[in-house]
Amino acid sequence: MAGLTHFDGEGRAHMVDVSGKAVTDRIAVAEAFVRMRPETLDLVAQGTAKKGDVLGVARLAGIMGAKRCADLIPLCHPLPITKVAVDLVVDANLPGVRIEATVKTSGQTGVEMEALTAASTAALTVYDMLKAAEKTMEVGGLRVVLKDGGKSGRFEAEVT
Amino acid sequence: MAGLTHFDGEGRAHMVDVSGKAVTDRIAVAEAFVRMRPETLDLVAQGTAKKGDVLGVARLAGIMGAKRCADLIPLCHPLPITKVAVDLVVDANLPGVRIEATVKTSGQTGVEMEALTAASTAALTVYDMLKAAEKTMEVGGLRVVLKDGGKSGRFEAEVT
Amino acid sequence: MAGLTHFDGEGRAHMVDVSGKAVTDRIAVAEAFVRMRPETLDLVAQGTAKKGDVLGVARLAGIMGAKRCADLIPLCHPLPITKVAVDLVVDANLPGVRIEATVKTSGQTGVEMEALTAASTAALTVYDMLKAAEKTMEVGGLRVVLKDGGKSGRFEAEVT
Amino acid sequence: MAGLTHFDGEGRAHMVDVSGKAVTDRIAVAEAFVRMRPETLDLVAQGTAKKGDVLGVARLAGIMGAKRCADLIPLCHPLPITKVAVDLVVDANLPGVRIEATVKTSGQTGVEMEALTAASTAALTVYDMLKAAEKTMEVGGLRVVLKDGGKSGRFEAEVT
Amino acid sequence: MAGLTHFDGEGRAHMVDVSGKAVTDRIAVAEAFVRMRPETLDLVAQGTAKKGDVLGVARLAGIMGAKRCADLIPLCHPLPITKVAVDLVVDANLPGVRIEATVKTSGQTGVEMEALTAASTAALTVYDMLKAAEKTMEVGGLRVVLKDGGKSGRFEAEVT
Amino acid sequence: MAGLTHFDGEGRAHMVDVSGKAVTDRIAVAEAFVRMRPETLDLVAQGTAKKGDVLGVARLAGIMGAKRCADLIPLCHPLPITKVAVDLVVDANLPGVRIEATVKTSGQTGVEMEALTAASTAALTVYDMLKAAEKTMEVGGLRVVLKDGGKSGRFEAEVT
Repeated sequence: MAGLTHFDGEGRAHMVDVSGKAVTDRIAVAEAFVRMRPETLDLVAQGTAKKGDVLGVARLAGIMGAKRCADLIPLCHPLPITKVAVDLVVDANLPGVRIEATVKTSGQTGVEMEALTAASTAALTVYDMLKAAEKTMEVGGLRVVLKDGGKSGRFEAEVT
Repeated sequence: MAGLTHFDGEGRAHMVDVSGKAVTDRIAVAEAFVRMRPETLDLVAQGTAKKGDVLGVARLAGIMGAKRCADLIPLCHPLPITKVAVDLVVDANLPGVRIEATVKTSGQTGVEMEALTAASTAALTVYDMLKAAEKTMEVGGLRVVLKDGGKSGRFEAEVT
Repeated sequence: MAGLTHFDGEGRAHMVDVSGKAVTDRIAVAEAFVRMRPETLDLVAQGTAKKGDVLGVARLAGIMGAKRCADLIPLCHPLPITKVAVDLVVDANLPGVRIEATVKTSGQTGVEMEALTAASTAALTVYDMLKAAEKTMEVGGLRVVLKDGGKSGRFEAEVT
Repeated sequence: MAGLTHFDGEGRAHMVDVSGKAVTDRIAVAEAFVRMRPETLDLVAQGTAKKGDVLGVARLAGIMGAKRCADLIPLCHPLPITKVAVDLVVDANLPGVRIEATVKTSGQTGVEMEALTAASTAALTVYDMLKAAEKTMEVGGLRVVLKDGGKSGRFEAEVT
Repeated sequence: MAGLTHFDGEGRAHMVDVSGKAVTDRIAVAEAFVRMRPETLDLVAQGTAKKGDVLGVARLAGIMGAKRCADLIPLCHPLPITKVAVDLVVDANLPGVRIEATVKTSGQTGVEMEALTAASTAALTVYDMLKAAEKTMEVGGLRVVLKDGGKSGRFEAEVT
Repeated sequence: MAGLTHFDGEGRAHMVDVSGKAVTDRIAVAEAFVRMRPETLDLVAQGTAKKGDVLGVARLAGIMGAKRCADLIPLCHPLPITKVAVDLVVDANLPGVRIEATVKTSGQTGVEMEALTAASTAALTVYDMLKAAEKTMEVGGLRVVLKDGGKSGRFEAEVT
């Protein structure tokens, strides 16, 4: 099955052997957004300014989520993560919250799944915190925007 | 902070007290999609027909992800889940994979976060299985489409 | 697929819906053994009598293992376990260690997987504690010997 | 307590100090079987050929189980696993399913416990998927068949 | 062994059988403190007022810690927690941070271990956030101050 | 925010970047005590001498707790622990149990949080095992007594 390393020659899923790959410094950045009504977003903005910090809770959930990636994604390798940062900003034009997660490691395989897991966990936490006010929120734009440090070279997503 | 039950009167995060709520049968359905290039989707379709079952792996990851919801989302209550089903279908028009996750419980609070976690974990697993072939895939449309069984009544999302 | 409730009509894996089942008191007992050389078993017997308590460590690992069952077995329901006991005895005739795990719950589905997980985790821990002395140990006879409390009635394994 | 490195000089359990050991490439292979009635095995064979993929679900559970080893076995070191493969084949002569799990790491201690945990988790998952059809299945033959890469040299089990 | 329910008649550890106990509403409150130098406490106070919210991070860690109790304490029953609140206040007289954790459930056994785990996890997180500034902080006064709702009646600790 | 590396320049929590730090051998030792009535302590002493081994169970819980540190403490890095030892001794003068936990790693950041988590988990387990006999026990003196191997040099707490 050309291109899909997570299957062996017989099409059986396995965790791919990375033992022959070099230990290098790797970085990945993922992003996502949570779209909501303007009046829901107002609750976020008020909270950040004063109290009831939606973004602070989601940031922490995202950081912790990165550490659970190998528990959640069946064929992911457990990796010694060396950095996680999750930024959340209010975007009145969306309207909603934009999330960017950065993960680093010194390891034998990339950390884009960790970055995606951090971003999606932060996004779901934003949903959880606000769902009493609005049920029609939607998470989207969850993708890798940067990946670097491995054999396959640097990947940068196009700006959208 | 009107509408946000996850904060107390002082704006401090807490896991809201549901001990006074009735134990009722509850259901939630969430959906998401993974958009990809047609040639990447061809790999999925081939795998399902023959071998290298991307959708089967993602389905299982989604089911297991539902059980990890309370570990990931800080203020979620642990719940005795009574059913999880995750459906994944190939959509050539997207092009990509559409995911629908259904979760049931008999409990004191809803399971929409479990359904969202199942859908997003399945979506991330699709990404993981295919990322060797394409890095520009994007997860979107992650939202609740049905929630029923609690005091707040039935919620159904509009068809988009 | 007649008889296999873990698949739906299309053969897709799902966590079966138990929301319509009654909450009843349920019990399951599983057993296993670890076969080893007589001189390895002597180390266990010495440890139990004096110090270096192999069986005590394995007992605790088995009890904790029962609580991780739903994390490990993809389609198992999380259950509020109400009792776990793991007994380990030295059997010079085997020669080796015999393990019996008992689990109870008040729930909507049985606990035989929890009992099996407790027994196998205890067995693997026995292996881990003794592997510096012998690598040829073997775990066997892992099976359910009693299951009661559900709609399908009482099951007792034949004595072997 | 001669030979049992998991206890200190006073017989107290501890996680043994491996900080002075070299980081080397290590591999371990474990095997197990699930014995069942021929008619139960027929359900597996049908499923693999058409739908209701028992072996595919068990394979994934085994791979994920390897990553939970240090959570389950009290004195195991957490290790950066670099490969996991779990093979399951139908054996009509058993009759039942034979399982072989291979785990690799670059670390300071061996991965035989990870391989055993992968094999036993896969075996229990086979049991779980088929238990509606037969309760008298039995897991056996769970043992290490190969271990290599550490200071104690290569170990190969005798063929049985 | 009179009084120690976590051991059977032979002195072997087990998870005690609570299946015969009534499901009742239960509550427990635990407290702890982290003592530190006045200048370290100033960093906390500044952070709460402006940014770098040590107490907010520790509050969330405590809430999530309550949900991990049964994973950490070997003989604890998994319980469907219905509420967790963790309060942290600056006490200039200590000097340090005072922590109070409240946990509720509707279950067959008490939640004092969940409350203690919440308080200790919050305390360790305070330590972690501030350890770059001071290594001599000390956690103390970790105890149960209220427990109610079970057969053994109401317990209230004396004010100290 | 001077001195608090767990916050970035804007005061937002993050997991600090250690990718530029050297991999060195690191050690940390933490201690704690559980104070109890003399008659409660008698139960511990009897158990250790004969059966019902409170200290043995708590020792194992502490060792396993060290491995869960990065799951519990939000901004802790996951680390490949190379050694854990937890000593518990009866102190009639306290009266109570004194706990000392030692953790080692070869990594890019220190293990004092792992040592503190081991000590506190062991302490809470002592509480859990004895709470049927006494509810007024108190955990205190939880602190780091030794930390060595990193760039910031050796730290030894003063004897108290």
